[in-house]
Amino acid sequence: MFAEGDSMFEQRAERLEGLLAERELDLLLVTDLVNVRYLCGFSGTNGLCVVGPGMRAFVTDFRYLGRAEGEVPDYELVRGERDLLADAVALVERRAGAAGARVGFDDQELSVKRHSKLRELFPDRVDLVPAGGIVERLRRVKDAGELETIRRATAVANELYRWLMEEHGLVGHTELAVARALERSAQDLGADDVSFPPIVAAAENGALPHAAPRPVAIARDTLVVVDLGCQVDGYCSDCTRTFATGDVDGEMQEVYELVHNAQAAARDAIREGAEAKAVDAVARELIEHAGHGERFEHGLGHGVGLEVHEEPRLASSSEDTLEAGSVVTVEPGVYLPGRFGVRIEDLVVVTATGCELLTEVPRELLTI
Amino acid sequence: MFAEGDSMFEQRAERLEGLLAERELDLLLVTDLVNVRYLCGFSGTNGLCVVGPGMRAFVTDFRYLGRAEGEVPDYELVRGERDLLADAVALVERRAGAAGARVGFDDQELSVKRHSKLRELFPDRVDLVPAGGIVERLRRVKDAGELETIRRATAVANELYRWLMEEHGLVGHTELAVARALERSAQDLGADDVSFPPIVAAAENGALPHAAPRPVAIARDTLVVVDLGCQVDGYCSDCTRTFATGDVDGEMQEVYELVHNAQAAARDAIREGAEAKAVDAVARELIEHAGHGERFEHGLGHGVGLEVHEEPRLASSSEDTLEAGSVVTVEPGVYLPGRFGVRIEDLVVVTATGCELLTEVPRELLTI
Repeated sequence: MFAEGDSMFEQRAERLEGLLAERELDLLLVTDLVNVRYLCGFSGTNGLCVVGPGMRAFVTDFRYLGRAEGEVPDYELVRGERDLLADAVALVERRAGAAGARVGFDDQELSVKRHSKLRELFPDRVDLVPAGGIVERLRRVKDAGELETIRRATAVANELYRWLMEEHGLVGHTELAVARALERSAQDLGADDVSFPPIVAAAENGALPHAAPRPVAIARDTLVVVDLGCQVDGYCSDCTRTFATGDVDGEMQEVYELVHNAQAAARDAIREGAEAKAVDAVARELIEHAGHGERFEHGLGHGVGLEVHEEPRLASSSEDTLEAGSVVTVEPGVYLPGRFGVRIEDLVVVTATGCELLTEVPRELLTI
Repeated sequence: MFAEGDSMFEQRAERLEGLLAERELDLLLVTDLVNVRYLCGFSGTNGLCVVGPGMRAFVTDFRYLGRAEGEVPDYELVRGERDLLADAVALVERRAGAAGARVGFDDQELSVKRHSKLRELFPDRVDLVPAGGIVERLRRVKDAGELETIRRATAVANELYRWLMEEHGLVGHTELAVARALERSAQDLGADDVSFPPIVAAAENGALPHAAPRPVAIARDTLVVVDLGCQVDGYCSDCTRTFATGDVDGEMQEVYELVHNAQAAARDAIREGAEAKAVDAVARELIEHAGHGERFEHGLGHGVGLEVHEEPRLASSSEDTLEAGSVVTVEPGVYLPGRFGVRIEDLVVVTATGCELLTEVPRELLTI
């Protein structure tokens, strides 16, 4: 499919051209910075791409030119003004003949204000067509280099859990202190950063799926939800474990076993061609059957890559079908308000016959 | 102006109502999360406000309800669906009679896609009016509580520079190691986090105004630009110093003196009523006069508050007039590509007669 020797970025641009042709778009104006990074390599915070047949152009302002020279090997590098919009228009105009052009744009990202400004700058013969999701569509299936980077990001998270369990511990530290120690240890272990601020949530705080760590000491004999990810070369990992800090009561043990079983069953249901909502249903039905259906209020999982939440979505409302090469989380949870929560999350690569488990942290209930 | 005993958030809502009346808006739909935090206190990552006469409503999804109960004392708390849009429409509909309503929205933030969805959900008698910048306008002038928090954020940054100079040092460490050590020390000194990833840029890397710290050891006898800020209770500080790591040549010393003088002159020009572009010009003309006008490619400064870059802007293209109670940076720089850069940045509060200097870090060229 690709000319031999084409770079990773050129291969992505060629796949993108295929999707543009399907939608009868001449060019794509890419303003979402994650999409920009995926397409051309730029990791700074102001830049955009214009991509299509015969056009591989990247614009940034003077502050990031030096960085772009190092990071963007395959695109024409254009120095633009701070807001970049007039520069984008000039690039499109180079391609749009008298007949005009159909130019897709990231409508999920572009603000109403910047869109109005663009619309004013473009001549009428340029159609601006909402086209968010095209690059996200490409990003769903990881190439070998991406998988390798995500493996490294996951390996650091695996090691970070080992460090937490064997060297650092939980009891007596505050949730906030553990969260910060995890951030530091992640860097010490080779991460560029964490993928998101770690969640460390004991007892009733664990019943909030997106709990903020509190300056409150973690007690014995409760459950603690720890959710963290590491970032390596721009790519994320994501893993949750729920630990015991001593003796936990029968209900805590039961809920743990329920989530543990639901998580394993959902993993077993993952394979290329599976409907994401069907995989979600495998875990959800087990949890509903145990009477906790109302306490599993989020989706089963999500894609992970340059962003910690990306496509595909594994949820009852998802229309996605799983593809080989997608990297997704599997993370059912049960949350009993005011008491405790349990969530167990692994990161897996979807394959033709099932999935490859990247997370290597024990899944049984551990006391630490 | 305000009823005695009105809370901080209620006072802000009342000031906002004044600006809405000026624009003949019945309600403001606030989707920018920083504006949401400013208005109602919510610090999570999914929420919106609807504000106007008789309406103080905040919507979030189930994940953040617990947090919102703790953080949002003065607004009606509404549990919404994940995308929050239908819930926003329902709130507006409560107010919009048969005659309809004019509803402003954050057009700088709202994406084209979410706007289209909103437009479909609203009946025709509701006008959606681009109204970005209204809350940002309020945020320009800090109240006493905000100033106190920014003072604390600046005090941590002051202490962090003392720690860097007296305890940690530069020579022999990599730029990246110093940047990470600064992040950790910021937390140890009481910051919730840094305001942005610290810049530590030696020699030629210092010539990039937004340099990324490299895994490269800092040598003796050069200049190192260190730009950092600390975040406390949501508010930022921002400070840059340029250090010598030994003997630096005459040109480095000359450029340092130039920037130092330009920075002091610009600070002297700040006062309530001054035009931002005139203050920028004070520094710029000194630097131009010395033949380095082309090497000072960014604005003189920017407002700091909940965001590290906010209004007002101090730049040659700015139309802003300084107001008492604004908190702004003063940060001229000169960047000699491939060689070195110098930037000196203080944080000040604009007052009726001048400015109050918050940054307390020596401004002369220090060797560390």
